Amino acid sequence: MTAPAQPGQPLADVDTPALIIDLDAFERNLQTMADLVAASGASLRAHSKTHKSPIIARKQMDLGAVGPCCQKVSEAEVMVDGGIDNVLVSNQVAGGAKLDRLADLRKRAWVGLCVDHVEGVAQASAAAVRAGVTLDALVEIDVGAGRCGVPPGAPAVDLAKAVDAADGLRFGGLQSYHGSAQHIRDFNERLGTADAAVAVTRETVQMLADAGLACDIVGGAGTGTFPAEAAGGVHNELQAGSYVFMDADYARNRGEDGSDFGPFEHALYVHARVMSVPAEDRVVVDAGHKACAIDSGNPVPAGLPGAEVTRISDEHSVIELGPANDRPGWGDTLLLIPGHCDPTVNLHDHYVCVRGLSTPDARVEDIWPVAARGKVF
Amino acid sequence: MTAPAQPGQPLADVDTPALIIDLDAFERNLQTMADLVAASGASLRAHSKTHKSPIIARKQMDLGAVGPCCQKVSEAEVMVDGGIDNVLVSNQVAGGAKLDRLADLRKRAWVGLCVDHVEGVAQASAAAVRAGVTLDALVEIDVGAGRCGVPPGAPAVDLAKAVDAADGLRFGGLQSYHGSAQHIRDFNERLGTADAAVAVTRETVQMLADAGLACDIVGGAGTGTFPAEAAGGVHNELQAGSYVFMDADYARNRGEDGSDFGPFEHALYVHARVMSVPAEDRVVVDAGHKACAIDSGNPVPAGLPGAEVTRISDEHSVIELGPANDRPGWGDTLLLIPGHCDPTVNLHDHYVCVRGLSTPDARVEDIWPVAARGKVF
Repeated sequence: MTAPAQPGQPLADVDTPALIIDLDAFERNLQTMADLVAASGASLRAHSKTHKSPIIARKQMDLGAVGPCCQKVSEAEVMVDGGIDNVLVSNQVAGGAKLDRLADLRKRAWVGLCVDHVEGVAQASAAAVRAGVTLDALVEIDVGAGRCGVPPGAPAVDLAKAVDAADGLRFGGLQSYHGSAQHIRDFNERLGTADAAVAVTRETVQMLADAGLACDIVGGAGTGTFPAEAAGGVHNELQAGSYVFMDADYARNRGEDGSDFGPFEHALYVHARVMSVPAEDRVVVDAGHKACAIDSGNPVPAGLPGAEVTRISDEHSVIELGPANDRPGWGDTLLLIPGHCDPTVNLHDHYVCVRGLSTPDARVEDIWPVAARGKVF
Repeated sequence: MTAPAQPGQPLADVDTPALIIDLDAFERNLQTMADLVAASGASLRAHSKTHKSPIIARKQMDLGAVGPCCQKVSEAEVMVDGGIDNVLVSNQVAGGAKLDRLADLRKRAWVGLCVDHVEGVAQASAAAVRAGVTLDALVEIDVGAGRCGVPPGAPAVDLAKAVDAADGLRFGGLQSYHGSAQHIRDFNERLGTADAAVAVTRETVQMLADAGLACDIVGGAGTGTFPAEAAGGVHNELQAGSYVFMDADYARNRGEDGSDFGPFEHALYVHARVMSVPAEDRVVVDAGHKACAIDSGNPVPAGLPGAEVTRISDEHSVIELGPANDRPGWGDTLLLIPGHCDPTVNLHDHYVCVRGLSTPDARVEDIWPVAARGKVF
């Protein structure tokens, strides 16, 4: 797989489109989150669905994370193959063959999964028994996102009892993640929604304790809400992922009193090149849907205030430059801030890691594979 | 790269999510287009941006196509590496290193490119001279899509003269593609828009002829409008691509008198599995943004009338089942029709080719790599 750059190259020589990490901002993001989580008394179980890289997971663990979580068995396989020995699949796993792979992985590392249905418990139990391992299963509760999970309270206790009674499984705790709260723009509304999720989680943990079922792990939280879960004292593993890179959608979240969303910086870009100049105030660059995910909006040109991607197709983005003063010409390169980091990363095979991105000496320091790119099964 | 299936497996045993080709429908689509184009007197230069597979390009050529077109030099490299000896890059190519790769490819196959700017002509010329080859360059004209291309008429003649005068380049003709016309829903409006594009193309071809510049290739058309370009008598290479697979967005186009858009069939699906049943009339499947592109709308559940994907996130799709009678249960599999075939294909490493998809004996016949998956540069 040919990489779009080589270490030592200046940024301008990197092929287009290419996925760029601003190493300086990225390293600051890692340290900032490590410090914040350490101060809370909880642990970081950083979500690897964002970066899909054992190299980055290891850096997070070196700063204190207990290990990554991921969404897919194939991602967990990449993490374990990359030397990571503790991986939570923070998601339901359906299908006997897939569960057999997860159970096999348990022979090489600690791996756990989530359940929200008795049939899921039965399938996971059967796979664990076939492999001769014990899998920790967390009961996922729906704390308001309305996607997966059993209702908090009694239904969660019932399913936890089913896990506890199942051969090959061990009740591992709760998965309590409010996905749709992460991007509520208003600070108080966002954190208040997470506070409510913490409250129902606390009640469920107490009901489980009353039933004799202790929660080793109470997992959840994301980059948008983690201060609430960190302060709540119930979640002990915080699953933020996007903070490593940030994206245009998270930047639209507001901080306290309407300030910029902080304290993380943009550290991920798509390097693109002007391939057509159809009008004085409009350029077309060579990065479209296949280089930038648009589920959370179009990419945003970096360093060109007022410029906007107004149309995007498979291989093209049309940028209206507006009053931007320093207009790129035919063949010039520019950087796009992805609308959504996770699915954008999943489109690329390599990270081009650049040191000094904001300086004239911006230079490629390293190339990292997006090792779990396309690992969707 | 592990494939999600093995030849001989029944469909139900294919891992999820996985990209499925209905071989029977796919083969009918190939033959139908070959017959229609043959009757028109034009040639098919089927777009490989859809399928990214030299195997499929070869099947199209075996039925009469002159060769594929593609959008990226890296795609052209995959095609030539896969034994295809005639590839048009139907797009501008910017950047000296990228043009050097294209010129190198010219030593192994016929490859051409498009230009719409004098700087693009200069860079392509320099690369061809460095490599000691002659590259055919087509002048792209903007026939109404408002993306790339010079205006038809005099500006196109001026740029063609620049190509003709440039060392290492040969004027190869015109690229005249109206991208945004392909998905105009109304038949008459869609074909009428294409007719207008044909008319300005005809005028430009005549102006070029008057200037002593003959067009070997006049390329354009897509699955939505190709009957217009085929009938127009100006385009001699029709670049339809999506017809091989179709998708939910093309299915929303209307045929003559409001009938279903034809004559092609859905031949591409994403195999998904129910991983959560949060309510009696709602299921969550294990395929989200990373398995189904949503730039042209959410995927559509096949064979479940009234069922709708109402929410999609990175690894989940929430399906409201509505009045669908045969409700999938936990762990059951189903097929999703992608909203847009091209970027969905680009998310997967393998095609799982199934024979008899609509029968109880649906079985994996072959696995084909999506060889140019991720080839965006």
